[in-house]
Amino acid sequence: MRTLRITLAYDGTDFRGWQLQAAGRTVQGELEAAVERMTGRRVRIAGAGRTDAGVHALGQVASLRVETDLPAAKLRLGLDSLTPDDIAILEVADAPAEFHARHSARGKTYRYRIHNHAIGSPFHRRWAWHVRAPLDRAAMRDAAARLLGTHDFSSFRLAGCDARTPVRELRRVELVERDDDILEIEIEASAFLRGMARAIVGTLVEVGRGRRSPEEMPAILAARDRAAAGRSAPACGLYLVHIRYPPGAAAGIEGGEER
Amino acid sequence: MRTLRITLAYDGTDFRGWQLQAAGRTVQGELEAAVERMTGRRVRIAGAGRTDAGVHALGQVASLRVETDLPAAKLRLGLDSLTPDDIAILEVADAPAEFHARHSARGKTYRYRIHNHAIGSPFHRRWAWHVRAPLDRAAMRDAAARLLGTHDFSSFRLAGCDARTPVRELRRVELVERDDDILEIEIEASAFLRGMARAIVGTLVEVGRGRRSPEEMPAILAARDRAAAGRSAPACGLYLVHIRYPPGAAAGIEGGEER
Repeated sequence: MRTLRITLAYDGTDFRGWQLQAAGRTVQGELEAAVERMTGRRVRIAGAGRTDAGVHALGQVASLRVETDLPAAKLRLGLDSLTPDDIAILEVADAPAEFHARHSARGKTYRYRIHNHAIGSPFHRRWAWHVRAPLDRAAMRDAAARLLGTHDFSSFRLAGCDARTPVRELRRVELVERDDDILEIEIEASAFLRGMARAIVGTLVEVGRGRRSPEEMPAILAARDRAAAGRSAPACGLYLVHIRYPPGAAAGIEGGEER
Repeated sequence: MRTLRITLAYDGTDFRGWQLQAAGRTVQGELEAAVERMTGRRVRIAGAGRTDAGVHALGQVASLRVETDLPAAKLRLGLDSLTPDDIAILEVADAPAEFHARHSARGKTYRYRIHNHAIGSPFHRRWAWHVRAPLDRAAMRDAAARLLGTHDFSSFRLAGCDARTPVRELRRVELVERDDDILEIEIEASAFLRGMARAIVGTLVEVGRGRRSPEEMPAILAARDRAAAGRSAPACGLYLVHIRYPPGAAAGIEGGEER
């Protein structure tokens, strides 16, 4: 039995999220179907981040245990051609037997794209949140800095989150200006509660529009109430970009053996 | 009667091109319908570039003559909200009575985006041509330089082109590397024959893949036969980016009066 690690990207627009559902198209479902067609085995695949409907991924990581003699490079090519065009299989590698995409993860990075311009763009509408009002970047950076550290993030947690504890370490929130009036917010944390990235972005945008002040952040955290923070930013702007694993845990990632 | 100049962007994916057709959704059709709803007048709108089905625009220019008292800024807002989301109205301005988007144009710039990577991307598939094989940029630049100047471009002209003469001045072909394995080819000419930009790009890509040599370019031009040049690059990678007008011809563009 081999343990495999798959790195993949997807356009989340037409998925009901990562996780298998009773009905509807999911990334996990498409991936499990492709593995079954290729290996003849029904498998269960774990994703590092259970992205919600409409959320994209540039570097999602998945793991599975499967009986197959196919070399990793062949598996990558085969899975890439068997999955639909809105999924790209970037890498398949053998991993240590105990590797699990979610449980082994020690950090995650999400990126949020905002198209900040008075006029909407036909080219960004699927890939970014269109915010017409000018955003005060300095105030947003100030507010972001006040959220850093280890806190109870209940005020940024959606109903239906099954995490045992609402305490997370927010390690980095960075605002980056891109071409074409795109503002990116990159958020790194030990792990994310359900809806946490979009709630943080929605709150920072309210600060950027002058509707909240950076000084309110500690009180929002202390409230431990989702209603205390800002409205969630829409799914179309969110990308899961990177999963961090401890050295050795994911082998291939840190340069382990390839079959 | 006012003459208006409209600058607009569109995602060409779901249009059968700029020009009105017997059946099917066109940019001209959507724009004329929006003007009619706003002004109560049926008008005919001229586009500077008659982009084909699937071709995008970042800076298409259109002109029309219409009876209306609405200020230009109101017209922009109204037309932007009355057109579907895959069209963005960037500017509306009054122009000199004799201004005509196509006849007054003195130059056009197209941009072609190639995603040059072994693995396809879910995020580029609608917006760029995916070329898996590595491309020899130096050979492509060499070939491009040999096409510059005033020539008979019949070898780069699609059937159905209604231009009176196949002679065009190719002023600039520039290869620009972007993030994310995107190679852009920017092409500026006095005007373009039907399919000319895509035929030039298709030919340059064949040079980049080593299937043709830069030295073949003069012979391809001399053949005056579409079959002599390379296959056309797909529509999804092509963008009409800029229309050049002589100073004063388009007023608003060079800073003329706003109503």
